Amino acid sequence: MNYPNGKKRLIRKYQNSVNRNQSFSNRGMTLEEDINATNQYYLTHDICVIHKKPTPVQIVKVDYPKRSAAVIKEAYFKQASTTDYNGLYRGHYLDFEAKETRNKTSFPLHNFHEHQIKHMKDIVKHDGIAFVIIRFKAHEKTYFLDATKLFPIWDRQYLTAGRKSIPHQFIIDEGIEIPTHYPAIVDYIKVIDQLFF
Amino acid sequence: MNYPNGKKRLIRKYQNSVNRNQSFSNRGMTLEEDINATNQYYLTHDICVIHKKPTPVQIVKVDYPKRSAAVIKEAYFKQASTTDYNGLYRGHYLDFEAKETRNKTSFPLHNFHEHQIKHMKDIVKHDGIAFVIIRFKAHEKTYFLDATKLFPIWDRQYLTAGRKSIPHQFIIDEGIEIPTHYPAIVDYIKVIDQLFF
Repeated sequence: MNYPNGKKRLIRKYQNSVNRNQSFSNRGMTLEEDINATNQYYLTHDICVIHKKPTPVQIVKVDYPKRSAAVIKEAYFKQASTTDYNGLYRGHYLDFEAKETRNKTSFPLHNFHEHQIKHMKDIVKHDGIAFVIIRFKAHEKTYFLDATKLFPIWDRQYLTAGRKSIPHQFIIDEGIEIPTHYPAIVDYIKVIDQLFF
Repeated sequence: MNYPNGKKRLIRKYQNSVNRNQSFSNRGMTLEEDINATNQYYLTHDICVIHKKPTPVQIVKVDYPKRSAAVIKEAYFKQASTTDYNGLYRGHYLDFEAKETRNKTSFPLHNFHEHQIKHMKDIVKHDGIAFVIIRFKAHEKTYFLDATKLFPIWDRQYLTAGRKSIPHQFIIDEGIEIPTHYPAIVDYIKVIDQLFF
């Protein structure tokens, strides 16, 4: 399959392991890999500029061997203070987090962290576009949910008898299914166009 | 010194080592520390949402000891594919890199990388605001230089006899000095206001 622009395929981490007879959604790619490939596609085709932020790491010990690269010998994973993805589309600031679940009927809220929600609230307050991408692996469906629809559910979980998850049906009703197409394009910009432009 | 809002001071990494008799610019803080403190101040005071991206690291080996946190035992520094800072101000996307030099008369271009310049060109193309913050430590001056003023100088360095640095005088003429004030505020948003709003 050829793209315009002479690019044969997107650079894919495990591209050789993809069985061409498999359907798109059965390739065993993670949502993160798909979104990284999508962002690469968007960048190459001048659609938008979205990057994943590096994993935050607390570096404790570094060796500097002679004549070779510095080696980090001790470091720890830190909790991110923002979402994983942000960038620019047609002059607008976009910010999102992407998560997948094996659950069939609901998406557990513990997939997000309090400071990520706080960050998305800050983004909305300053007139940016914040959202989450949620994939139900069992249903092979990927959804766009505007952050403003997530906030009340998030806040409600702390009340007595507050739900600790988002029902799949809520996401079907209040979110938008993201069109996906080979290879690995999770075409969330189409949803942004539909909602904001 | 008290801030409104009940916050006594910004959280500062080496705050106890700051000698109160020293002038602001002599505190021995790096530009990065000052900008991180500035961004924290901006966030706390609801001015804008700008974060530094984590240092990109290629993780090779991780230990998972029982009953304690995962330890990264081997990792390497990777070159960043974007600038270090980005975020949102009044609905606009901001993106910048910050660098300081001990040079007195010019700023060496090797402080930037080709892909960072490419990234800033992408940002400008998609209607974001891209710029660099340059500090001359010897002069105790910090400047804002719009990325569009940097691009021609960057591209020209590859020509025969192209300069490999930006003269201090060019930055004085074409940039804008960033107002700085205690503690550690490098008030670049003031310059954004002046230029874009």
